[in-house]
Amino acid sequence: MGNWQKNIRQVRPYVPGEQPSQPNIIKLNTNENPYPPAPGVIEVLKELDTDRFRMYPDPSSTMLINALAEYYQVSADQVFVGVGSDDVLAMAFLTFFNSGKPILFPDITYSFYDVWADLFRIPYECPKLTEDFRICAEDYKKPNGGIVIANPNAPTSMAEDICFIEEIVKANPDSIVIIDEAYVDFGAVSAVSLVEKYENLFVVQTFSKSRSMAGVRIGFAIANPVLIKAINNVKYSYNSYTINQISLALGAAAVREDAYFKQMVQKIIATRERTKEALEPLGFHCFDSRANFLFAAHNKIPAKELFERLRAENIYVRYFAKPRIDNYLRITIGTDAQMEVFLQKVKKMV
Amino acid sequence: MGNWQKNIRQVRPYVPGEQPSQPNIIKLNTNENPYPPAPGVIEVLKELDTDRFRMYPDPSSTMLINALAEYYQVSADQVFVGVGSDDVLAMAFLTFFNSGKPILFPDITYSFYDVWADLFRIPYECPKLTEDFRICAEDYKKPNGGIVIANPNAPTSMAEDICFIEEIVKANPDSIVIIDEAYVDFGAVSAVSLVEKYENLFVVQTFSKSRSMAGVRIGFAIANPVLIKAINNVKYSYNSYTINQISLALGAAAVREDAYFKQMVQKIIATRERTKEALEPLGFHCFDSRANFLFAAHNKIPAKELFERLRAENIYVRYFAKPRIDNYLRITIGTDAQMEVFLQKVKKMV
Repeated sequence: MGNWQKNIRQVRPYVPGEQPSQPNIIKLNTNENPYPPAPGVIEVLKELDTDRFRMYPDPSSTMLINALAEYYQVSADQVFVGVGSDDVLAMAFLTFFNSGKPILFPDITYSFYDVWADLFRIPYECPKLTEDFRICAEDYKKPNGGIVIANPNAPTSMAEDICFIEEIVKANPDSIVIIDEAYVDFGAVSAVSLVEKYENLFVVQTFSKSRSMAGVRIGFAIANPVLIKAINNVKYSYNSYTINQISLALGAAAVREDAYFKQMVQKIIATRERTKEALEPLGFHCFDSRANFLFAAHNKIPAKELFERLRAENIYVRYFAKPRIDNYLRITIGTDAQMEVFLQKVKKMV
Repeated sequence: MGNWQKNIRQVRPYVPGEQPSQPNIIKLNTNENPYPPAPGVIEVLKELDTDRFRMYPDPSSTMLINALAEYYQVSADQVFVGVGSDDVLAMAFLTFFNSGKPILFPDITYSFYDVWADLFRIPYECPKLTEDFRICAEDYKKPNGGIVIANPNAPTSMAEDICFIEEIVKANPDSIVIIDEAYVDFGAVSAVSLVEKYENLFVVQTFSKSRSMAGVRIGFAIANPVLIKAINNVKYSYNSYTINQISLALGAAAVREDAYFKQMVQKIIATRERTKEALEPLGFHCFDSRANFLFAAHNKIPAKELFERLRAENIYVRYFAKPRIDNYLRITIGTDAQMEVFLQKVKKMV
């Protein structure tokens, strides 16, 4: 082989949760929503003008951005959209973390942060969560090139309150602070309300969890217009047309269906709490989840064993063979019926 | 404002062609296909399992990759797919151009190459096309960190033959050579046939032009498995789920409709040649196009004036206020009826 191989960027690829294709699986491993998207989304899909597919989508994503701006009561120039929140976050890393100083995020958090930092050669430090997996605000009050906090955090499932988030944002006027709110709709308080007050705050959310549209790939951010313009400039320099026509239309439709959205979210929260209450007498410790999953450890059986035994029963949950969390399972909240089967199987095992 | 602004990546954003929303425009400015996608694409759209939208798409894009591998008679591990060829190309720049040495592409070519190089801080040099806008192979036989050639080139519309491409690939065993074939289906010869022979060759194509699916955002690359694995690693490090469920299904359907595809391409080629023949007696010089557009200059009236006068008549073509090409118009080939109106208006102007 020629020397061309030396020119290739070396990366450590992210490994997504398994997507088994068998139909009889109870899939509680990728934090997907167990309910279908809102009925209005399906109607819009049927009414799409397919002749227009020959044309490029609106590069400024106006339809979707306007729907989000109206829903979150911000102006359109405070909203950015991307191909899932992973796209929004990756582009935010590329846009906002160019100081040369290390960025900060917890040692236990969404496993893509260090992958993006490596990809874009951004130095980083990972302050440790406490023994009970809480974030220490003090760890984020030293010189840094930026901060990323998932709130609720993953895979711990716990949320910090809005005052805690404000404390970190306020303490870092010279850094851009990204709050990744992928799970916020399941019971946490969003930092969107702080965006008017703190111009260094960049809040990211997704349609993949609470809006049942992981397969359609939509994420968004809300921040002050200077940050939005900066990330849009990078986006236009990368790919002017990232979100396709179909996602733009379906996303806007989803935002309009607020009643359905709230109903499904409440349903998942209720199932989560019921599941938690059922797991605890079985010897599990579950953290106080504000997400669509539970993070749970059993007091006798190792997580890896439970993971494998559940898998043998066609129930997929997520297990991370990583320091500090290798005795926990991340269990996505499915339908009541799915969680019933899950609990029955678990009961037999413990 | 705090010092956070210093951390923002400074870029020169790409400016896409206008996307006017009025319905009465004859839009010959963004090289879109004037015909709708294949009927099978619309059928697949109607049959989509919308309940599955709640789940992540297949991260390995198997359905689409298999369809492309079968069509181009390569193996699945030789195919990469992305959100339009812009996504594929940007990711290829990020993956393959890490030598520190300047990459090479012509001074007149697709205007995104220097934007991506700037975005990812890749040094570059731009050898000049000849006076008659041809690429000099000799310019690409010096030390470099990679090469990008659009073939057919844009906006010149002209193609180089396969021996010319092979000469460049062969002369650069230590670099990765990207051949950007966005327009290849309109009469040029693809370098896909060279992929087995040259492991440093990376051929990129798109569904946006010949397959009438710019609005669905699908691009792909064919290369040896080592290059495909390397770009997949970067893709999985950036965003595991870039192509949504809908695009995967629609893209695979489009590839299956070969008869429709060939028929539409032939129709556009015929319209292009007729338009060219009609323009020449009016005082235009058109290059020998192998794309779905003409690159034309008038012998008396400046291109900018023609551009503005056509625009006033609701006919949008593309004009580039750039050195060497500021007296040319890039005219996308529309339907016969659209080109007839265009020619009538032009006749009155000259």
